[in-house]
Amino acid sequence: MLTLFPDMFTAVFGSSILKQAAEKGLISFQAIDFRLYSTNKHGKVDDYPYGGGAGMVLSVQPIFDAVEAVKEKAKTEPRVILLCPQGEQYTQKKAEDLAKEEHLIFLCGHYEGFDERVRAHLVTDEISIGDYVLTGGEIGAMVIADSVTRLLPGVLGNDESAVTDSYSTGLLEHPHYTRPAQFRGMDVPDVLLSGHHEKITEWRSEQSLKRTYLRRPDLLASYDLNKKEAKQLDHIKRDLDGK
Amino acid sequence: MLTLFPDMFTAVFGSSILKQAAEKGLISFQAIDFRLYSTNKHGKVDDYPYGGGAGMVLSVQPIFDAVEAVKEKAKTEPRVILLCPQGEQYTQKKAEDLAKEEHLIFLCGHYEGFDERVRAHLVTDEISIGDYVLTGGEIGAMVIADSVTRLLPGVLGNDESAVTDSYSTGLLEHPHYTRPAQFRGMDVPDVLLSGHHEKITEWRSEQSLKRTYLRRPDLLASYDLNKKEAKQLDHIKRDLDGK
Repeated sequence: MLTLFPDMFTAVFGSSILKQAAEKGLISFQAIDFRLYSTNKHGKVDDYPYGGGAGMVLSVQPIFDAVEAVKEKAKTEPRVILLCPQGEQYTQKKAEDLAKEEHLIFLCGHYEGFDERVRAHLVTDEISIGDYVLTGGEIGAMVIADSVTRLLPGVLGNDESAVTDSYSTGLLEHPHYTRPAQFRGMDVPDVLLSGHHEKITEWRSEQSLKRTYLRRPDLLASYDLNKKEAKQLDHIKRDLDGK
Repeated sequence: MLTLFPDMFTAVFGSSILKQAAEKGLISFQAIDFRLYSTNKHGKVDDYPYGGGAGMVLSVQPIFDAVEAVKEKAKTEPRVILLCPQGEQYTQKKAEDLAKEEHLIFLCGHYEGFDERVRAHLVTDEISIGDYVLTGGEIGAMVIADSVTRLLPGVLGNDESAVTDSYSTGLLEHPHYTRPAQFRGMDVPDVLLSGHHEKITEWRSEQSLKRTYLRRPDLLASYDLNKKEAKQLDHIKRDLDGK
């Protein structure tokens, strides 16, 4: 992680899955302050934009030198990822792609834009984690680090990885319930207490389809329904749309 | 922030814009371990899912009690935000909506799903920050906290807020350059060194349109082009598509 705020990463990499993955030796991680690579005697890393305008621009020199210093120690050619609003939209598919890499370098800007030459000559992937404005690239780098790490073999225990995540099945998840069966007048659906496995499976499939239909119909468009699901979805549409 | 990993937030809230906003008294923030609200003598917060299946489910009791404890001290009725893949897609518009609120409560799950009764009876907003799988809601809560905080009056300095962000103008940003004009054979475009303000403005507008057309044509569809921009875009399309 090349950043002006290396401390931002400490707690996130020291918790939960990322921590466990590091302890198992499955990932290693370093946050590097690229200010240390500035040849400017005051450690300056930004300057006024050519052509005028508000805001400062991150200079090429510290970033090129920092990336090269990291690459020199790398065993393989690292992907260099720039977090920016102009980048391609991050998806689970991209996470799977990045999980195949040996080494990732993240460039995290802060407040300011990068000099275009960084984008054009140094970066292999420009990624946006969503259509919203963040102060820096750091939180986006955490998003990618977390989503990629959990895909690496051995990181998740069997029990965790067996959970049928949304996006990996292609549909939104069905509702979950646990004890108590009654809580302040709110009850668990009878079917889940019935012990009737076939009915439970059917209910879950139906709930999953219904939720996806109501909330993310775009996911249904690219989902391959089996015969049973197609029939369930017909019923759901008839019920909801009164057709 | 209701979480099982309160430490994850410390560094992020202690850096940059979020830190400055807190120091100016413009926001205050608390990370609360909802395990502390569990009435179970071992501090258990999860249990097996009704109906069987892999994975654990976060129980209703600790979460209802934690939210209620926070609400009791709140001056206004807080929005209760659940970070989850089933939620509505987070956008800059949603950030602007949340920035009008006095108090936000974030529910961050980890590994596991929430009991559906939390979703149905406690939560006001279910939000997904993107179509990818994360280990917990914590990083998503950071995304929302950062994007909302920077919209609050007085948080950004004039210089920072004057920067024309992507998503606030509706187009992707034009390229930025700063000194040196030459770096390892990579040059800054002549127009930016010309001192000719009108040409610079025109170049930037063109670059912004071109980048948006190439990378995010969906943004152009909802952007209101002025006459000059419409003409520029025609030129760009003709050049790129050879028409």
